[in-house]
Amino acid sequence: MRALVYRGPGMRALEERPAPELQHPEDAIVRLTHTTICGTDLHILKGDVPTCQPGTTLGHEGVGVIDAVGPSVSGFRPGDRVLISCITACGRCDYCRKGMYSHCLDGGWILGNRIDGTQADYVRIPHADFSLHHIPAGADEEALTMLSDILPTGFECGVLNGKVQPGCSVAIVGSGPIGLAALMTAQFYAPSVLVAIDPDRHRLDLAQRFGATHVLAPDAGTPARVRELTDGRGADTVIEAVGVPASFALCQELVAPGGTIANVGVHGVKVDLHLERLWSHNITITTRLVDTVTTPQLLKAVNARRLEPAGLVSHRFPLDRMEEAYDTFGRAAESKAIKVIIHV
Amino acid sequence: MRALVYRGPGMRALEERPAPELQHPEDAIVRLTHTTICGTDLHILKGDVPTCQPGTTLGHEGVGVIDAVGPSVSGFRPGDRVLISCITACGRCDYCRKGMYSHCLDGGWILGNRIDGTQADYVRIPHADFSLHHIPAGADEEALTMLSDILPTGFECGVLNGKVQPGCSVAIVGSGPIGLAALMTAQFYAPSVLVAIDPDRHRLDLAQRFGATHVLAPDAGTPARVRELTDGRGADTVIEAVGVPASFALCQELVAPGGTIANVGVHGVKVDLHLERLWSHNITITTRLVDTVTTPQLLKAVNARRLEPAGLVSHRFPLDRMEEAYDTFGRAAESKAIKVIIHV
Repeated sequence: MRALVYRGPGMRALEERPAPELQHPEDAIVRLTHTTICGTDLHILKGDVPTCQPGTTLGHEGVGVIDAVGPSVSGFRPGDRVLISCITACGRCDYCRKGMYSHCLDGGWILGNRIDGTQADYVRIPHADFSLHHIPAGADEEALTMLSDILPTGFECGVLNGKVQPGCSVAIVGSGPIGLAALMTAQFYAPSVLVAIDPDRHRLDLAQRFGATHVLAPDAGTPARVRELTDGRGADTVIEAVGVPASFALCQELVAPGGTIANVGVHGVKVDLHLERLWSHNITITTRLVDTVTTPQLLKAVNARRLEPAGLVSHRFPLDRMEEAYDTFGRAAESKAIKVIIHV
Repeated sequence: MRALVYRGPGMRALEERPAPELQHPEDAIVRLTHTTICGTDLHILKGDVPTCQPGTTLGHEGVGVIDAVGPSVSGFRPGDRVLISCITACGRCDYCRKGMYSHCLDGGWILGNRIDGTQADYVRIPHADFSLHHIPAGADEEALTMLSDILPTGFECGVLNGKVQPGCSVAIVGSGPIGLAALMTAQFYAPSVLVAIDPDRHRLDLAQRFGATHVLAPDAGTPARVRELTDGRGADTVIEAVGVPASFALCQELVAPGGTIANVGVHGVKVDLHLERLWSHNITITTRLVDTVTTPQLLKAVNARRLEPAGLVSHRFPLDRMEEAYDTFGRAAESKAIKVIIHV
């Protein structure tokens, strides 16, 4: 089969590989119909993710059709159309029992990291019963690819951790795919102010189209502008969707007393935390690797047209042009890429 | 009347001052029977608290007897015995309505800071209905002084923000008055592991007497020792009760995936936050200036002997020896002071 393989820092190749086989009674083999590229795949290619060894097929997002299941799989049969969760979960360990699938002792984020991933014709999914979801008949499968990772990430790590409430104010720092996913799902809770902050004009235009009440380019005046929009208080929820010290610093300037900074960004270095000012501000800071516990909810929201993820798809490529897809996604400022879908 | 007055950085004096008078219909005048000294008073004396102007009577803790009330006070009458909350609350503003009295737009921490405080014969209490509590008949009034600030602070900022749950593991960094208050109130929730960490042997002995399951001096081996006690995971709740960069750094090494660092310490400088490691650990960090919303609960717990704050009192002085009381509290390592009570 075809597979996009990580070959060490800076190197990748679309290669012929043997198709995966069932290895464990809880495994399923899925034939991909759609997959996509995540910012995390670019981190791997930079050599930032030591758990991912050269020779691994990349990708942790996708939809497809069940090809085979192990004898212990009870929820899926060959031919079923499925959404693949970026998080693999055994469902039984301490962490899984408290809904923290991201830290599953026999799973977590392993697809396209510790084991071969979804940027291929076929993928093996361990613990299939907890790691796959049935796709409703007639669904837009291309759009559902957004539910493998970015929509639950924006929703769980940003909106739920950020405790977005009716009438509250929300500032989202970063309008990339994850920031936009948070922006879309924040609207489930009817905030009164929903500010998107990004230096890229194209992304701010998208944010406005997706429901931001205000869009701002980040500069020295941003905190004052957000205070103006919030009775001088700052934002009740601030979502960090970038992952660099400057964006986390901005979040600390934006948060209201009693508010929450929900970190979603993947950080490579430590940041300054201004406790000399914030110790008495009654704030909460959260971090989270997505657990994908809300995927069934989000599937229903899409089915009911309460959430329309199709707008996040900016480009489409066949699997044979995977390298071009990576180039397009890697040069997002130029290509205006948000999510690049691969039709397998 | 007698009052301990802040005279600028490094300077204080026990002086004769005019007794306070009612200034607003919601005011009460309280004749103090007991007051105490807080670490925050020492911060003021160092010049660290610019909102406190020279000439202010210090102190935000105390119990006493109502001497006079304004015409709008409905809950208290002259002769009532009362506990003074360190936080003054109007009860009506946005912040008060969500239980965030610490940020009351016409109150918050003002006693012994923006207005004259409790280290005196009499004190004026604004918004008396929301800022005073009736003392049950027969209560140990000296011990109840611990409920003005340190017990609600340890409980709200440490235990409640830290989400202590039955069976969970708790590490408390710092065994001063606030750390010990958190240690006492954490036991309401039956944690399985309750570790106290402090370099002072006397304080660790107290922590053990007050219910710590393990006591540790902080050193390079502390994180490994806490992991040993917690199935290799780290502590579910870590309470920061010191307020310096090294103690906050230690908390980040102790917290389990999915856990909470509840900051209680008053910080003077920024700290490092290791998001390059913690972004994916699903942790929560909280900060809080105490709201004293749990004071009625804590009064009932003391009355029912579920909480015994008397053990926190290490020294007693009459008001005339206030200067000696400050010296004793200021040299706590030597004097073994925890809380120094002033009998007025």
